[in-house]
Amino acid sequence: MTTANAAYEQLNTRFKKISAIGDARGILGWDMLTIMPKGASEARGEAVATLDAISHEALTDPRVGDWLNEAEGNPPADPDHQVNLAEMRRLYAHASAVEPALVEALSRAGSRCYQVWTEARPENRFDLFAPALTEVLGLVRQVAAAKSEALGLTPYDALIDQFEPSMRAARIAEIFAPLREQLPPMIGKVIERQAAEPAREQSSGPFPIDAQRELGLDVMKLLGFDFDRGRLDVSPHPFCGGATDDVRITTRYREDDFASAMMGVAHETGHALYELNRPAAWRGLPAGTARGMAVHESQSLFVEMQLFRSKPLMEKVAQLVNQHLGPNGSKAWTGDDLFSRFTRVKRSLIRVDADEVTYPLHVILRFELEQALIAGTLEVRDLPDAWNDGMERLLGIRPDSDQNGCMQDVHWTDGSFGYFPSYTLGAMIAAQLAEALRSQMADFDGRLGRGELQEIRDWMKVAVHEKGSLLTTDALVKSATGAPLGADALLRHLGRRYLG
Amino acid sequence: MTTANAAYEQLNTRFKKISAIGDARGILGWDMLTIMPKGASEARGEAVATLDAISHEALTDPRVGDWLNEAEGNPPADPDHQVNLAEMRRLYAHASAVEPALVEALSRAGSRCYQVWTEARPENRFDLFAPALTEVLGLVRQVAAAKSEALGLTPYDALIDQFEPSMRAARIAEIFAPLREQLPPMIGKVIERQAAEPAREQSSGPFPIDAQRELGLDVMKLLGFDFDRGRLDVSPHPFCGGATDDVRITTRYREDDFASAMMGVAHETGHALYELNRPAAWRGLPAGTARGMAVHESQSLFVEMQLFRSKPLMEKVAQLVNQHLGPNGSKAWTGDDLFSRFTRVKRSLIRVDADEVTYPLHVILRFELEQALIAGTLEVRDLPDAWNDGMERLLGIRPDSDQNGCMQDVHWTDGSFGYFPSYTLGAMIAAQLAEALRSQMADFDGRLGRGELQEIRDWMKVAVHEKGSLLTTDALVKSATGAPLGADALLRHLGRRYLG
Repeated sequence: MTTANAAYEQLNTRFKKISAIGDARGILGWDMLTIMPKGASEARGEAVATLDAISHEALTDPRVGDWLNEAEGNPPADPDHQVNLAEMRRLYAHASAVEPALVEALSRAGSRCYQVWTEARPENRFDLFAPALTEVLGLVRQVAAAKSEALGLTPYDALIDQFEPSMRAARIAEIFAPLREQLPPMIGKVIERQAAEPAREQSSGPFPIDAQRELGLDVMKLLGFDFDRGRLDVSPHPFCGGATDDVRITTRYREDDFASAMMGVAHETGHALYELNRPAAWRGLPAGTARGMAVHESQSLFVEMQLFRSKPLMEKVAQLVNQHLGPNGSKAWTGDDLFSRFTRVKRSLIRVDADEVTYPLHVILRFELEQALIAGTLEVRDLPDAWNDGMERLLGIRPDSDQNGCMQDVHWTDGSFGYFPSYTLGAMIAAQLAEALRSQMADFDGRLGRGELQEIRDWMKVAVHEKGSLLTTDALVKSATGAPLGADALLRHLGRRYLG
Repeated sequence: MTTANAAYEQLNTRFKKISAIGDARGILGWDMLTIMPKGASEARGEAVATLDAISHEALTDPRVGDWLNEAEGNPPADPDHQVNLAEMRRLYAHASAVEPALVEALSRAGSRCYQVWTEARPENRFDLFAPALTEVLGLVRQVAAAKSEALGLTPYDALIDQFEPSMRAARIAEIFAPLREQLPPMIGKVIERQAAEPAREQSSGPFPIDAQRELGLDVMKLLGFDFDRGRLDVSPHPFCGGATDDVRITTRYREDDFASAMMGVAHETGHALYELNRPAAWRGLPAGTARGMAVHESQSLFVEMQLFRSKPLMEKVAQLVNQHLGPNGSKAWTGDDLFSRFTRVKRSLIRVDADEVTYPLHVILRFELEQALIAGTLEVRDLPDAWNDGMERLLGIRPDSDQNGCMQDVHWTDGSFGYFPSYTLGAMIAAQLAEALRSQMADFDGRLGRGELQEIRDWMKVAVHEKGSLLTTDALVKSATGAPLGADALLRHLGRRYLG
C-alpha cells in the first residue's frame, strides 16, 4: 500500500506524461494546420486519434482514481500542491465522466458536422447543416448530462467548466447584464459620432506578403515575443499553438490589406506570451497550465485591444508600417490614421469581424442560445429564427441569410458549447488588467508611446502568467486588479476610447 | 481463451497503433531537425522520450508475447500473413531482448557521447571523445550479448539484424571481398585516367538559394516525387523523414556550390519514392514497412548514382540547371560538364564526401573495425591507430588527424554499430537493379536522356517498393534481378562508368 505522498508522486509522474503527449499533439496539430501536405490527412488523423486515445487512457486509468483518493485522504501540506491535486481531480472527473463510446461518437459526429458545415455554409444550406448539428447537439446533451451528474453542476455549467473552470452560467449572466443593457445605446452614440468624423484616405496596397511578414516579426519583437521559443507561420485561420517552450503563432496575409495579418499577429502574440511565461516550477503539471479560456483570451485582448490598438502605441506601430510597407499614398502613415482605422464601430453580422464595442453582444446572443439548446428549450430547426430575432434585439440588424447568421461559427460544429462566453469574459479581464496597470504604473501611456513594454510585460508575468492555474479566474482577477471580475472596467474603457 | 486468428487480429491492431505512434514520432523528429526553435530542445526531448517509451511498452507488453505464441500455434493460411507474423516476432524479440534499464542507459550515454562528439571533433580531441565512446561501446556490447542470446545470433550479427534483417557478417564479408580486392587497383587506374582529362572551367556562382530550391523542386518533379504527400525543406544534414503519406526530404544550400544541395535532393528523393510506394494493403503492419537499411539505401543510390549521375540524364539535368541558375560563365552548362564534375574520383579521408568508387572501402574499414570493437579484440584507445592503418591499407592514404579519421562519423556516438555495411550493400543492390532494368527495358538510356522516368519508376514500384518487407533482402534482390546479391554488378557499373 502506497502512502498518500507516494500516490501524489505517482499522480505528478502521470500528469507529466500526459503533458508530454500533449506537447507532441500540439506540434502535430500545428503542423496539420500549417504545412502538412494535403494527402497526409487520413494518416495524420490516425496518428492524432491514437495519441488522443493514449492520453485519455492515461488520464482515466482506474489507478489515477485510486491515487487521487489516497492523496486526498492525506493531502500535501503546501496549499499550492493542494490546488494542483484539486486540478488533477477536476481533469480526471471531466475525462472519466463520459463513456469512451460517447466520446468517440461525439468526435466522429463532430468531424462529420464540420465537414458538412464547410460545404453547407458557402451555399447557405441550413437544411443540409441542420441534421448534422442536431446529431452533435444530441450527443453534447448526453455529455452535459453525464458531466452534470459527475460534477454536481447543471448540464450547461458542466460544459462551461471544460473551458473556464469554476465559472457558472448564472454568474456570467450577472456580469454580462450591464453590457447587455449599456452597449446598445453606446453603439448608437459611437456610430453617430464616428459618422461626423472626416473619412481618411488610406492606401489599399498592394502590400507585399514578405514585407507584411517582416512587419509582423517586428510587431512580435515590439511586444516581447521570444523567438528562441517560438515561431510565426501562416495558416488559413490565425491561432496560437505548439508546445512547451515552442509556442507557434500564425496569421494570414492579404495583399490588399495589411491590417488583418498584423492584428492577428498582435492578438496571437498575447496568447503566446501567456504560454511562454507559465510557471517553470509547475511544468507539466495541472497547476502550471493556463488558467482557462477567459484568462487566455484576456491576454490576447490585453495585447491587441489595450496595448496595440491604443493611441499612444499606434504611433510606434505607424513607424513600423512606414518602414516595412512604405507610405500611405503620398504621405507617411500616422498613429492617428491607424487608430482611426482600427477603432471603427459598426453593426455587423459576423462576430469574427466585429469591433470591440459590438463584439460582446454577438457573444451574449450565442450564450443565450446555447443555454436554450442545451436545456432543450430550443431545437436546431428553430435556431435560424431565434438567431435572427436575437441579432435584431441586441444589435439592431437582422441577418440576410443563415450563412451570415447561425451558420457563421465553427464552434458548435464539433460540439464546443460553453466556449463563447470566454471571449467576452476575456475582454472584461483585459480591461480590468489595463485599468489596474494604468493606476499602478507611472507614465503608462508614455511607455506605450515609446514602445517600452518590458515593465508592463513583467507586471503581467507576475500578476497573471506565472500564476498558472494556482488561482481560480475570480481570485486571479481580484489578486491582479484588486476588484472582482465584472463589466465596469470594460465599459469605462469603451466609453473613454469611443466617446471620451 | 482467444483463437489464433483472434490473437493475430490483436497483433495487427497493436502494430497499427505502434505505427501510428511512429508517424507522430516521425513528424516530431522532422520538426526537431528543421524548424524547431532552439529553446524547445529539452521539452521536445521529453515529448519524444515519452512517445518512445509508450511505443516500447506497447511492443514489449507481455500480451504481445502471448498473442505471438497463440498465433504461431495456429498461423494464418496466407503465406504473406505468415511473413507479417514472423516480422512481428522479430520486432518483439529485438525489443524484449534488452532490459528497459539498459535501453535507457544506452540512450542516455548515446546522447552524452553525441554531445561530447560535437565538441571534441572540431577540436580534434580524441582524448575527450574516448571515454564517452568507451561507455557507449560497453553498453552496446551488453545489448549485443542480450540480443545474441535472445535471437540465437552472434553478438555483431544481432546488431546488424536491427538494421538489415537476416543479413549476417559472414555473408557481408563474402560479398564485400571482391570490392576489397578489386577496388584499390581500379581506383589507381581511374585517377590516372582522369588526371589526363582536361580540366573544365566551372562557375562558382554565387547561386541564389531561392533559385537552388526551385531547381531542387524541379529535380524532384523529374524524379516523380508526389508533392501531395511530401515536402522539401532545409536541415543541416539532408535526410528523408516524416510519416505515412507525408514523406519529407531535406537538403542544405551553399551559395558557392549548387551540386551538394541538388545531389542531396536526388538521393533523398530515392528514399522518399520507396516510402511513398510502400504497399497500401499492409499499411501500419510490419510486412508493409521498408525492407531494411540496405534496400532503402539501394533506392537512394539507384536514383542518385544509377539515374541521376548517368550521362544521358545529365543532359536533362543540365537544362534545369541552366534554367534556374543561368549559364556556366559565358556558356550554357552541358551534360558533359556536369557528368565530368559529378564523377571525379579521388582518395579522400571523409566518407560522406567520397565518390562511388572509393566509398565502399570506407565502409569496409568501418565494418572490420566494428566487428573487432564488438568482439572485444579492439578497444577504443587503440581505435585511432587501427583506423589510420586501415585507411592506409585500403585507400592508400593516412589521416592527418582523428578529426578526419576515427572521429568523423556520427553513427557510433549513439551506439549504431552494425549500420555501416548497409551503405555498400545498398550500392550493390542499386547496381544490380539498374543492370536488370537495362536488360529488361527497351531504350533504357534513351528514356533517361529524355527524362522519361515513369516506366522505370513503375518497374521499381512493383519490383521493390510494393514488396514492403514480404521478402528477405536476398529474396527481393533475386526476385527483382534474377541474380543473388553480390558485388559483380557494382564492379561492372564502376568499370563501365569510370574505365569504359
